[in-house]
Formats: sequence, C-alpha cells, structure tokens
Amino acid sequence: MSKLTDVPKRILIGRALRSDKLGETLLPKRIALPVFASDPLSSVAYAPGEVLIVLSVAGASAYHFSVWITLAVAVLMFTVVASYRQNVHAYPSGGGDYEVATTNLGPKAGLTVASALLVDYVMTVAVSISSGVENLGSAIPFVVQHKAICAVAVIVILTLMNLRGVRESGKLFAIPTYVFVGGVFVMIAWGAFKGLALGDVMHAPTSHLHIKPEKSTLAGFAMLFLLLRAFSSGCAALTGVEAISNGVPAFRKPKSKNAASTLALMGGLAVVMFCGIMALAIGTRVRMADNPAVDLLRANGHAVGSSFVVDPVITQVAAAVFGRGTFFFVVLAAATALVLFLAANTAYNGFPLLGSILAQDRYLPRQLHTRGDRLAFSNGIVLLAGAAILLVVVYGADSTRLIQLYIVGVFVSFTLSQTGMVRHWNRHLRTERDRSKRRRMMRSRAINAFGAFLTGVVLVVVLATKFSHGAWVAVLGMVIFYGTMTAIRKHYDRIAEELAASDNPSEDTVKPSRVHSIVLVSKLHRPTLRALGYAKLMRTGTLEALSISVDPAETKALREEWERRNINVPLKILDSPYREITRPIIEYVKSLRTENPRDAISIFIPEYVVGHWYEHLLHNQSALRLKGRLLFMPGVMVTSVPYQLESSEVARKRARRRAEWTAPGSVRRGPVDVRRKDAGGKS
Amino acid sequence: MSKLTDVPKRILIGRALRSDKLGETLLPKRIALPVFASDPLSSVAYAPGEVLIVLSVAGASAYHFSVWITLAVAVLMFTVVASYRQNVHAYPSGGGDYEVATTNLGPKAGLTVASALLVDYVMTVAVSISSGVENLGSAIPFVVQHKAICAVAVIVILTLMNLRGVRESGKLFAIPTYVFVGGVFVMIAWGAFKGLALGDVMHAPTSHLHIKPEKSTLAGFAMLFLLLRAFSSGCAALTGVEAISNGVPAFRKPKSKNAASTLALMGGLAVVMFCGIMALAIGTRVRMADNPAVDLLRANGHAVGSSFVVDPVITQVAAAVFGRGTFFFVVLAAATALVLFLAANTAYNGFPLLGSILAQDRYLPRQLHTRGDRLAFSNGIVLLAGAAILLVVVYGADSTRLIQLYIVGVFVSFTLSQTGMVRHWNRHLRTERDRSKRRRMMRSRAINAFGAFLTGVVLVVVLATKFSHGAWVAVLGMVIFYGTMTAIRKHYDRIAEELAASDNPSEDTVKPSRVHSIVLVSKLHRPTLRALGYAKLMRTGTLEALSISVDPAETKALREEWERRNINVPLKILDSPYREITRPIIEYVKSLRTENPRDAISIFIPEYVVGHWYEHLLHNQSALRLKGRLLFMPGVMVTSVPYQLESSEVARKRARRRAEWTAPGSVRRGPVDVRRKDAGGKS
Repeated sequence: MSKLTDVPKRILIGRALRSDKLGETLLPKRIALPVFASDPLSSVAYAPGEVLIVLSVAGASAYHFSVWITLAVAVLMFTVVASYRQNVHAYPSGGGDYEVATTNLGPKAGLTVASALLVDYVMTVAVSISSGVENLGSAIPFVVQHKAICAVAVIVILTLMNLRGVRESGKLFAIPTYVFVGGVFVMIAWGAFKGLALGDVMHAPTSHLHIKPEKSTLAGFAMLFLLLRAFSSGCAALTGVEAISNGVPAFRKPKSKNAASTLALMGGLAVVMFCGIMALAIGTRVRMADNPAVDLLRANGHAVGSSFVVDPVITQVAAAVFGRGTFFFVVLAAATALVLFLAANTAYNGFPLLGSILAQDRYLPRQLHTRGDRLAFSNGIVLLAGAAILLVVVYGADSTRLIQLYIVGVFVSFTLSQTGMVRHWNRHLRTERDRSKRRRMMRSRAINAFGAFLTGVVLVVVLATKFSHGAWVAVLGMVIFYGTMTAIRKHYDRIAEELAASDNPSEDTVKPSRVHSIVLVSKLHRPTLRALGYAKLMRTGTLEALSISVDPAETKALREEWERRNINVPLKILDSPYREITRPIIEYVKSLRTENPRDAISIFIPEYVVGHWYEHLLHNQSALRLKGRLLFMPGVMVTSVPYQLESSEVARKRARRRAEWTAPGSVRRGPVDVRRKDAGGKS
Repeated sequence: MSKLTDVPKRILIGRALRSDKLGETLLPKRIALPVFASDPLSSVAYAPGEVLIVLSVAGASAYHFSVWITLAVAVLMFTVVASYRQNVHAYPSGGGDYEVATTNLGPKAGLTVASALLVDYVMTVAVSISSGVENLGSAIPFVVQHKAICAVAVIVILTLMNLRGVRESGKLFAIPTYVFVGGVFVMIAWGAFKGLALGDVMHAPTSHLHIKPEKSTLAGFAMLFLLLRAFSSGCAALTGVEAISNGVPAFRKPKSKNAASTLALMGGLAVVMFCGIMALAIGTRVRMADNPAVDLLRANGHAVGSSFVVDPVITQVAAAVFGRGTFFFVVLAAATALVLFLAANTAYNGFPLLGSILAQDRYLPRQLHTRGDRLAFSNGIVLLAGAAILLVVVYGADSTRLIQLYIVGVFVSFTLSQTGMVRHWNRHLRTERDRSKRRRMMRSRAINAFGAFLTGVVLVVVLATKFSHGAWVAVLGMVIFYGTMTAIRKHYDRIAEELAASDNPSEDTVKPSRVHSIVLVSKLHRPTLRALGYAKLMRTGTLEALSISVDPAETKALREEWERRNINVPLKILDSPYREITRPIIEYVKSLRTENPRDAISIFIPEYVVGHWYEHLLHNQSALRLKGRLLFMPGVMVTSVPYQLESSEVARKRARRRAEWTAPGSVRRGPVDVRRKDAGGKS
C-alpha cells in the first residue's frame, strides 16, 4: 500500500520506532492486572465505609443488614465480570462500551455511553483522590486537616505528570497494587486467625462509640429504601470494571482470552477483599455515620464533636488487626493511598483514549484522534483536571458526598453495553448455523441479558436513591457532554457536505487563467531577498513587489536600495497615511481582483522564524494578522517564505522533544491497528 | 511619491476617511482644555487633603503652614506651566517629554522618561479612580464602604469601554469638566462672600474634632522634613500637566500657540482652585488625619473609631458652604467623581500613544506602532488596567496611600524634560545670530533652567520624603519598564543585524535551481481540488500530491476517486502506523531536501476558512501545527490555499468592524504627520 520504499531513511526510523513501541506496549497478565484493575480494586478502600454510613441512619442495629448488601454487591460483581468477559471476546478491538453500544444500539446510545464514561472519568479522579487523601490522613493527621487543599495538590501533581508525558509504566502500577492486595489479604487472614482461632476480641478505634440514629424506627418501605441506598453506595466497588474491555489490544496474545482471565481474576480479588473488609468491620465493631460530629456519641452520651476524625473503614480495621501506628498499618495506609492515586491516574489515561475514539467519529475535534498530539491531549487533561478540582473544592474532598455522584455514569454504560451485547448475539444467532457455536452464543446471550437486567435495576435504584443526594450533578454533566458532542458532529457533517466535490469536474476544478504574484516588502533584508528569489522561481503570470509607505524617508531609502541592487522586479509602493499595514494591502488586492476576476493572486510574505515564545510577540505579528485577513478573500493564496534566525534552533529542538512525547494512555491502548472505518484526514 | 493613481477605488475610500478623521480630530481650545486638563484640574480634589493629612502628624496647630505650602505649589505650578509653554513651541510634534529627553539628552534619558511616564499612567488610573470613589462615597455611603470593589468595578468599566473602542469625545469631557470647574469657582466665591461679606461662620463636618498629634513637639529638621513631605503631597496637583505637550498635533492652527494658551489657562485655573479650596478648608476648620480612626478625637477625648468616614476636603468644604445633601453639594460631588474618572481615562489614551512612539523606536513590540491595531492596543490597555487593579487592591483603594507612589514618575520626566530643553536652547544659541530671536531663546532657556532646577529639587524632596512610604514601588516599576524596553531594543538590534542583506548579491539572492511542489491531500473535496488547481498554475519544477494513510480503507477510496476524476498529478501515499500526520510529512520533506539540496520545496496546504472562534478549534489544527513545523525547515515555503466556507462571512464582517475600530488616544494624537525617522516596516 505505502510507497515507503523510496524513502529509506524514513523506513528505518519508522520501523525502529514501531517495534520499539510494540515491545514496550504489550502487557503480560501479571502487569495488565495492576494497570487495569487499580480502579476497581482500590474502591474497596471506600465502598465498605459508604455502606455502613448509609446504614447508620437507622442506627448500629441496622449494620447486620450489611451482610446482605455485601452479598448483593458480590453477586453484582460476578454478574458484571461474567458479562464483560463476553464483551472482551466479542469486541477485542478495544472500543469498549462505546463501540458495543454504537454498533448494536445506534449512535445515540453510543453517545450516551460516551457521555456517561466521560463523567465517570472525572468522578474517578475526584473520588479516588479524596479517598486517597482520607486514607493518607489516617497516618498523617496534617493531611486530613487540609483535605481539600491536599486533594487539589495531588490532582495538580498528577496533571503536571501527565502533561509532561510520563509513560504509564506497568511496573509503577504493579508494585503498589500488589502490596495493597497482599496487605489486605494478610490483614483479612490475620484478622480471621486472631478472631476465630485465638478468640481475640479486636476493637476498631470507633468501637466504643454509639450511633444516634437519625430515624430511630424505620420500617417497611423506608427501611427498604435505606437498604437500597446502602447497596447503591456499595456499588462503587464496581467502577472501573469496564477498563479491561477498553484495553484488550494492549494484552499479549491470545488477547481476548488473556483479558477475560484478567477480568475474572480481578473480579475474584475484588469480591474477596470487599467481603473480607466488611466482615472485619462488623467483627471489630467499626462505627461510621453520615455526620459523625453529631451522630457519633461517646459513652457519656456527648457527641464526639467536629474535631474527631473518623478514619476510613480499611484503616480502622487495620488498626484493630495490626494495631495503630505499627509497620503493617503504615504500609497498608500508604499502599492504599498510592493505589487510589494510581486509580485516579487511570482516568488521565482513559479520558484521552476515549476522546481519540470519539474524535474519529467526529464527536470531538478531529485533532484529538492523532496520536501523540501533545496539544490535543493537553486540552483533554486540563479539562479533566479542572472538572475534578471543581468537584473536590465544591464538595470539600469529602468522598462520602462525592460518591453520590459517582455510580450513575458507570451503570448507564454497564446497562447500555450489556443490552447492546444481547442484540449482538441476537444478530449473530440469526445467521449462525453451527450447533455448538449457537449453544455458546445463547449462553453468552443469557449472561449478557442477566447482566443488562441486573445493572439496569441497579441504575434505577441508584437514580432513585441518589438523585437528590447529588446524582443530578452527574446527570447534568452527561447532558452537557452529550449536547456538545452532538453539536460538534452536526457541524462536521454540515461542513463535509459543503466541502464535497461535485461530480461535475468543471465546477470544482475551475482554474484561474493565470497567477499574479506579489511579494510583500518592508525592508530589503535577507528574508525579503529570499522571498523574491523563491517568488521568481514560482511565477507563471506577473510578479511585483509591494511595500507600504509609512515614512517617506524610509520609502526613499528602500527605492534607492532597490535600484542599487538591480532587482529586476517592479516595486509598487502604497501610501498609508495612518500607518496601517493591513488595510492598504487588502484594498489593493481587492482592486486587483475586481480588475481581473479570473486571475488568482499569490502573496508571498517573508517571515522570520524565531525560537522563543516571547520573540513571537516581537515579530511577524502584522504578517500574522494580514495572513488572517487575506485568507478570507477568494482567489488568494498566501505563501510564507520562512527565514530561520539563529534562535529558531531552540524551537526546532523543542519540536523534536515534543514529537518524542508519549501520550497518556498509550500503554493501555496497545499498538494501533486500524480498526475503525473513518480514521484519517487532517481537517 | 505613492502610486495611488492606479487604484481609483482606494483613493476615494482613503481620502474620504482621511478628511473625515481630520475634521473630527482637530480640537478648538475650549474642547482641548477639558480633554487634556481633566487630570491636573481633577487633582485639586485630593491634593489639598493630602497636604493637611501630612501636617496633622504635628497636630492641627501645624495647619497654618499650609498657606506656605499652597504658595509653594502655586509657584511650582506656574514654573512648570511656563516651562512647558517653551516645550510646546519648540517641539510641536507631540513627542512630549520622551522626545525632548531623547533628542537632547540621549536615548537613555529618553527611556528613563518613558519608564517614568508609563508608571505615571498606571498611578493616574489608580489614584484618580480611588479618589473618585471616595468623592462619590461622600454622597453615596455604600460606595465608600466597599471602596476597593467599587474602584475595581470602575476600572473594569473604563477598560471595557476603551477595549470596545469608544472614541474619546471632546464633548464627553467638556461638560463634566466645566461643571466641576464652575462648581468649584461658585463654591469658592460663595464661601468667600458668606465668610467675608456676611461674616457667617461655616463649619466643616470634621470641625468639631481634635487631632491627637503623633509627635506633639516637632522642631527643627524634623518639622522641615514634615513640611517638605506635605509639599510633596501637594505636588500631586501637577500631575498631567505634560499631557498638552503630547497633544499639540491635535490642536487647531496655530497649534503651538493654541496649546500654549491652553496650558496657561489650565495652570491659572488649577492654581486658583487649589488655593481657594485650601483657604476654605482652613476657614471651615477641616480636620484630616493619617489614621482618622485613632488620631481624630471627639470633644470627650474618645477617638472617632473606624466606622467614622472622613470625607475628602473638597466635599467637606462643599458641605460647609452649601450644606450637606443640598443640590449644589450633590452636583459638585458627582462632577468631581466624574472628572476624576475622566482623568483616569486619559491614561487609557496616553498609554497606547506613548506605546506607539516607543514601538517606533523599537523599545516595544513593533505592532504597537500601527494605528488602529486593535490587538496591540488591547494588550496595552489590559496591562494598564491589570497594574492599576493590582495597586488598588493592594492599597485598598486608599488614595492617601497611593499618592505616596504617584509623584515620582511625574517629576522624573519634568526634570529630564526641562534639562533637555536647556540643552536644546544651548544648541540653538550656538548657531542663531538673530538678536531678537537670541533674546527670546535666552528667555526660554532661563525659564526652562529654572523649571529644571525647581522640579529637580522637588524630585529629590519627593524621593527623600516618600521613598520608604511607597515611592520605592514606583521606582521599582520604572526599573522594570526600563529593563524590559532595553531588552526588547537589544533583541531587535540583534535581529536586524542578522537579517541585514550583505552587499555581495550572490550570497543573499542564492537561488534554488528549481521548485518541487507538494499538495497535501486528506480527502478529495473542494479545498483540495482548488489547491491542486492553483499548484498546477504555479508549478515550475515537479508537482506531486501527498497523502498520509492512517486507514487503508480511506486511502483506497482516495486512490480510486483520484483515478476516477482523472487528476493528472501523481499521488504519493505515506503510511503512518501511529496515525500521526506531522512526523511522516516532515520526514519526507527532509529526505527530499537531502536528495536534492538545491531544490526548494513548496508545500500547498488546502485550508478551510471558518467564521467562529469555536470552529477554529474544530478545523485546521493539524494543518496549523504542520505549518509551524515546516517553517523551521530551510528551503521550504508553505502556501495556504484557503477555501471560504459559508460561515466565514461572519468573520469577514467582524474583521471589517474591527478595521473601523477607533484606537484610544486617537483624538489627542491628532492626524498623522510623519514626524519620526524610523517609522515603517511590518516586522
């Protein structure tokens, strides 16, 4: 296909780069697990606490319901994992939920999923960072006293790291994730051993407190509603499960199988960790409350007050099992915080990845879809960070309040994706005749149908129980994303229609009869001489030099120099009584166009190329604005003839550095295989 | 000189515009006075109060010194006015102090004056607005309770007005200025009549208070120092006197004579108003203090406290003469505030005017020197407003504290300008033989020499008495401006040297042997077809079309369409495994340059031209960045072939509106007459 053969140098560079990137990019399962699963695994750091906080509304006596809620979350987790294993096999291209929904349910469903996921990425950053700061705070009190500032600081650091283009390294993810998972397992095992075998009674730091229930007697529907709300909060453990289905191309072969196994492993780990922490929390009598300053009472009946810091469940349990301040306690707290920060970082990788796919479908500016386009990624990263910072500041980095916004987006995409999968199997079953294949498909369809049903129910529950608690903010965010992307797509479609070449060749390829070339001259320096030289080479019609006279003395000097140098191009001088540059040129070009409407006009602008941004402020500004104006005139083309000043070397080097920059998300994206129809173009 | 004759349309438009502007621009004296004198006249609203505030350090008994200080200020005012009348005759070009200092004392002195004036403009805005808000506050208590916010709001409104390009209208200035001047005269006359003829005893609102002197017994040097400080504060009345010397070209003929008469009139009015207000303040027993909350005591010996608002002297006097809240009182307070805001507005006009002159001398970015260049003016205006807002916020819009920074800049430029004038006359006296002319010159020289001496003494006094009180901030600002402008000038000089064409023509006009043209193609739409058509017309060497393949399907479609349309230009396709656009093109061009180093390469980029800023975000971004990279490659020229979309009509209209925009300061600048040597160029 390509004609690379005639550019030997390029091949070498290109090839080398390619295999290089490939080697680094493909992930073995043991690395893929921490890269993709830091988000769902880390959520066990806050999900159990959220369940208990909701239940505390009905007092500590309601805590026994947490067993059932844990069970429900585990069932849901297994269902979702089983469902996504089907996705991974059916859509190994890495388009994820967006692709599944678009292909099977149409572009509107796809766009809904995309909006939901974009909101979800913002929430992942806000919730994970806030929770990470809270976990860190249980080891370092200063942090929890300045929660919002610390959370913003972490977001800013992550943002700068990603803007600078730190490559998402598998190892970077692996160590803290495995330390975290290992630590939680050791804690669960040691806690179970102490409690069951040794018969020790362990006490969480809040075990001596009593809960003042907001509503002392809840019954019937109100109690059910409360349990559903608690369950909704517990569902936070499921966020990020879909990440693997976006990342299939990054796996080693057999990609789908490896991805499916990783999914299963992740699901298993998450469920065990969630259940274990929950069991320990009940066993060590952890007490949480929505408003601990008022609702948590000491033995004497007084509230603990606002200076009392209620640590997250995971650190309370760790304090009970290992003892507060012990080596294990500190390691676990640090690993938890780190994994939560890594989970936030996955959003920095996922956001541009999704953005690039949406850009290919023209829902977002097209420049987002070129890889390694630093500027485009930067915009996405800054947008993500800005939204997350706004949320963190507004909600005071309070993970309990942020959680209310979190889960809507995830379950919108779960439900639509699973519904899409059911359609997918229906479509395939219509044509498939092979018995065993049909049986497998029907099994997959059943799994996806159950998944769609269950996640749909959860979505309704989440919306019903959390809408007024904050979920409306997430819905609003989704509507804004949806509206913006629809508008962008409409714009592109309208432009494409306007640009389409008609089949009548004479209409589009209407050729001007000849070209009148004009070289703009301010002084007779090297850039001007170069532009004149080039213009002479290019000319087909007439050629003249044009200068604007703002000072008679200067103009006279220019004329004399022109004659002295014997430049065989006629020099035309326009008077500009108001020292304007743009207007006289525009008007002159207009008059030429009026005189000879069939002529095209080619304008050569000598430009200096400088290296520093501040130098740009000092040069070429008039040229830049003139160019901007000229582009609006039909029948005019504008040629920049650059003259590279010494300082431009700086900028060349910078450009090279930028070209070598690694875009966030490149690891989880895997190598490019052209998988989508309408990639390309440089509009 | 110009070859306008062959562009009939342009002449008509140009001429019409020119005479049009001329008619509006030339100012009769009765309009020129308010336009140029609102700054010095308005300063009588705060200067008397500042004198009393300083004196209050030594208690109310020191107030009797204010007579001498008033006398000294009046003498200084007459001296400065007399001196500037010489400037106006000798330098009618409107270059002002900067031109006088540069011509006679060299560029460093000129740049010092320019730095001082730039700082002065910032201070004019900050002080005038703060004082205006204080005056308004004496009629509307809300304003004085939220001084800083109100001051910032007024600055923002003025800034927006000037950014939008409100033409400085003579009438707009005339009415409030004449109301203010008339009001003050009526007040002085009525006060004198009541006090002297009727024998009424008038009481200012603060007349019943006592001052607790900070230093009860001041003697000798300390007392002298205090008096000098009080005198320095009184010198605030002189700020803005130099404005007329910048505005000579805006006067009707005989310009210099009219300007000189206006100066004299302004000086007379200012002195009478200053003395009158001062006399009334003493007569009505106005009490001011540096820290009124502590230093002003009630009859019972208790301090008035921080809730007590001490009004400016002018409104206290107005309250004593007319009665608080009467019609005359409110009109005078409103007119005072308005004149102060107009005084601030003069800085918005003076700043870009000085900027444009500095840009001509390459001390500031050159684009500032084109008239009506909206963007350039906008930057200056925003810089001015930003600095003023910063000062207002930092100093809490307290005019007393801001005054400490104000007068340094003015007296730096007074002193250097007058010294320059002495040199000017010395130079002329060396050649002049005519007796009567020599006599006139020697008279002028004597006046300027006395002016230089007196303003120099005041400058030393101001620096000595105010440096630690805040004048150091102004000095720092001057140093920053000076450093920046020196750096910019150095940069331009270095570049000019690098760009200078050598006299060996073969070196500079080295012609590439031929041109290899490349048309970049993404899709075969109208813009591409137009670019191909133009490129064919321009070609001298070889021509090929280049497309980057990011998607095999799309590339295949392009190839087929290419053949179907029978486009007789070879189509080369480069593979881009990472969906990059820029890198493959850059590398291809590099390889071409390596193969044929003597070929120039001309790259045609089809561009869509859109109308809205948000559309820019959606289009041409890759093209823009590609162009940026290509400009760094030697031997490459880049041609934009624009295709105007329908929406570009919007932008064309906007551009036309912008071209008709009036730059601030255009009235006081007068019509252009080319007066400086090195105007021109569009670098």
